Amino acid sequence: MPDDPLIAALGARAPLSRVLAEKDIASGYLHDEAAGAPFGRARALVLPKDTQEVCAIVGACAEFGVPLVPRGAGTGLSGGANAVDGCVVISTERMNRVLEMDVDNQTATVQPGVVNDELNRVCAAHGLWYPPDPASSAWSTIGGNVATNAGGICCVKYGVTGDHVLGLEAVVGDGTAVRLGGRTLKGVAGYDLRGLFVGSEGTLGVITEVTVRLRSARRPPVTAVGFFGELADAGRAVAAVAARGVTPAALELVDRHCLRAVDEWKRTDIDPGAAALLLARSDAPPGAAEEEGRVLVDCFKGAGATWADVSTDPGESEALFEARRLAYPALARSGPVLTEDVCVPRSRVPEMLARIAEISAGWETPVANIAHAGDGNLHPLIRMPSLDAAAMTRAQHVFDDIMDAAIALGGTVTAEHGIGLLKRDGMRREMSQAVLALQRSVKEALDPRGIFNPGKILG
Amino acid sequence: MPDDPLIAALGARAPLSRVLAEKDIASGYLHDEAAGAPFGRARALVLPKDTQEVCAIVGACAEFGVPLVPRGAGTGLSGGANAVDGCVVISTERMNRVLEMDVDNQTATVQPGVVNDELNRVCAAHGLWYPPDPASSAWSTIGGNVATNAGGICCVKYGVTGDHVLGLEAVVGDGTAVRLGGRTLKGVAGYDLRGLFVGSEGTLGVITEVTVRLRSARRPPVTAVGFFGELADAGRAVAAVAARGVTPAALELVDRHCLRAVDEWKRTDIDPGAAALLLARSDAPPGAAEEEGRVLVDCFKGAGATWADVSTDPGESEALFEARRLAYPALARSGPVLTEDVCVPRSRVPEMLARIAEISAGWETPVANIAHAGDGNLHPLIRMPSLDAAAMTRAQHVFDDIMDAAIALGGTVTAEHGIGLLKRDGMRREMSQAVLALQRSVKEALDPRGIFNPGKILG
Repeated sequence: MPDDPLIAALGARAPLSRVLAEKDIASGYLHDEAAGAPFGRARALVLPKDTQEVCAIVGACAEFGVPLVPRGAGTGLSGGANAVDGCVVISTERMNRVLEMDVDNQTATVQPGVVNDELNRVCAAHGLWYPPDPASSAWSTIGGNVATNAGGICCVKYGVTGDHVLGLEAVVGDGTAVRLGGRTLKGVAGYDLRGLFVGSEGTLGVITEVTVRLRSARRPPVTAVGFFGELADAGRAVAAVAARGVTPAALELVDRHCLRAVDEWKRTDIDPGAAALLLARSDAPPGAAEEEGRVLVDCFKGAGATWADVSTDPGESEALFEARRLAYPALARSGPVLTEDVCVPRSRVPEMLARIAEISAGWETPVANIAHAGDGNLHPLIRMPSLDAAAMTRAQHVFDDIMDAAIALGGTVTAEHGIGLLKRDGMRREMSQAVLALQRSVKEALDPRGIFNPGKILG
Repeated sequence: MPDDPLIAALGARAPLSRVLAEKDIASGYLHDEAAGAPFGRARALVLPKDTQEVCAIVGACAEFGVPLVPRGAGTGLSGGANAVDGCVVISTERMNRVLEMDVDNQTATVQPGVVNDELNRVCAAHGLWYPPDPASSAWSTIGGNVATNAGGICCVKYGVTGDHVLGLEAVVGDGTAVRLGGRTLKGVAGYDLRGLFVGSEGTLGVITEVTVRLRSARRPPVTAVGFFGELADAGRAVAAVAARGVTPAALELVDRHCLRAVDEWKRTDIDPGAAALLLARSDAPPGAAEEEGRVLVDCFKGAGATWADVSTDPGESEALFEARRLAYPALARSGPVLTEDVCVPRSRVPEMLARIAEISAGWETPVANIAHAGDGNLHPLIRMPSLDAAAMTRAQHVFDDIMDAAIALGGTVTAEHGIGLLKRDGMRREMSQAVLALQRSVKEALDPRGIFNPGKILG
């Protein structure tokens, strides 16, 4: 191991037990959960425990001109955490301490490796709540959530990860730790570098600490459920909710393909004839939540739901949301799934669903849908029944055509998964040359050596 | 006029009637409302009516290497819109059209010169509401609001201007229009350049179009009022509200000096013995709002309010908020006022108020206070009874010491007014050298010619 001067330098700067040379790196550290995204071989894996160690590692990589790929739990779906050949992978998993709970100001300061659900367990003990809830919350870390600006189910009402980040610490340049943003609810001193680092996918530096804002714990929500015989009707119900000005705390869509896959796996008792299920929640104050639930059911019925009601049984409500969460793993049981992540203005959800169906039919490739429908964020799940080249090519065409359709409807190629490797081409379709040039100039300004996660986002 | 090749070039690119040479420029176009901020002489004033004209103007300035100072209504308080010698001032006042109201998606797309209140008049006709409400809303424009990331009274609950900007168009570089962000509620494609332009005070480009998100019109709020015999008690009441986890739609503090000045001007019938008034609003759903009002009154009484109650009279409530709005002009009647804009974690408001009183006493300079207390944003109003050099020097010391005190309490030197000219030194105190270097590298990357509002923010 000390044969490699970089590894020797890393070992000299950080405790040796936490530096692994190439042959000792488990392959899981070399990629995230993106299907079909390429990944390379790492020269070393480091597992620092504090900011000082990160500074040392970044300093060594800068000195040796070695690329550095930061990763949280590796639950990303765009390849943003995938190793590039000869890189140092830096995992934040040991930086997993909640450093401070400021109950009076409703903020928490955490190391990047704290798991999302774990933060919420600590919050709950103080009557507090951290809203961002990506589907990976049981495993994904706050650092990764910030690096991808992760969304989730309740961001339709409460906003995404970035809306909850007051400040952060990152190690940049040749190994300097900087504090961006702060601890106050407002602040406009200089350019919003905090916001620039949120969603930057490790390409500008390594996030080593995050201060997030919290909310008071919420009461158990009221759930509204609607079954639809036609997918288009569910889409129209989503548009109707938007038009009524109701902001539910969740508005999720699960289509027939997902419902069937979950039922085959878990025996759910969910109506097998339904083309789609809509699940909405209201966590408004007592009285108001029940009223919102009634409005949601009205919207569902008005759009042609075959059955819609407010669920008063917490067990039933939880089972339905569990079906939503299990949709992806249920589908993945029967073969590889390429996950899309487009977003359109929410009134265009019906058109987008129709376009997806056409694209699926055109390429003879099955596409299932789950969606954070309330904010127009769809996750078409492109299924590859076989791994032969023709099927994979068709799946890639579906992937590309869905991005094009989203752009044509005024949308974006990624709402919450990030660009990583898989969406670089989509980003080039979405943005003008002039905007891409600005994007590139920001990267060059903040990472002039080009060592931070090279090739991601901009290629 | 055509003697000046720049003006000839501008005239050739934009209708001549909208290009004014130096001698024809009213002095009001050369500065904003910041007391004591220097401003220079402009070479020309241009008043474009659309993006194409802005592209032409920026192109000419880039060609001639002439600095360009964008301005909205000039209601800023940091000198951000002040002319620099030899610059072209570009006023967006004629770009004042609401381009689109998308009722289904609750968004509006506007030119930058649309006045904040005017946007809300258009919104109200559709049952919609644009929350950001700076005190200048009757005059200030959306473009200026975005350029400064303006706050206001209700952002304690609804967030600041930047939280409402989905996308924008700006003219950058040598005259290219770019679209940053989009129209969707979520989106993580590339670096958040939209967020970078929000609050950039015209130093990265000229904002020519903004898409904002709206909300459904809200019901008339419930108002809670508290009078306090001691300023510190009012501060503790603010901390108590935070600790109870209530998020009112306004939580404003007005101190005795402001109350007295308003009373002397307008005869308000407000208790002249009060050291401070707290005004809070709840716009929660029916029932919940009344309950929140009671909690607020509890917090006020618990902290030692001499009188506190929920106001059920809309006229009385409006009169109290009017006193809040009139505080600054009332004080300004008796001499120049230097307006501070610091922010601290909201639990530190009592300490910050105490520090301000000490600083005021130490420099024998009266300081009045209004505050968006609920988010920790204080506006100490530093009074200069005379304009002699000694008094002005003392006022400057007070200004600096208040910034230092805010930084020491974990705060920032500016919550919503921006850096402009007056807070450049404060920003250098707040940020590390490494962060300032990053700030500078962003400016150089996006404005390599240095033509956009030079000298602002970074000096």
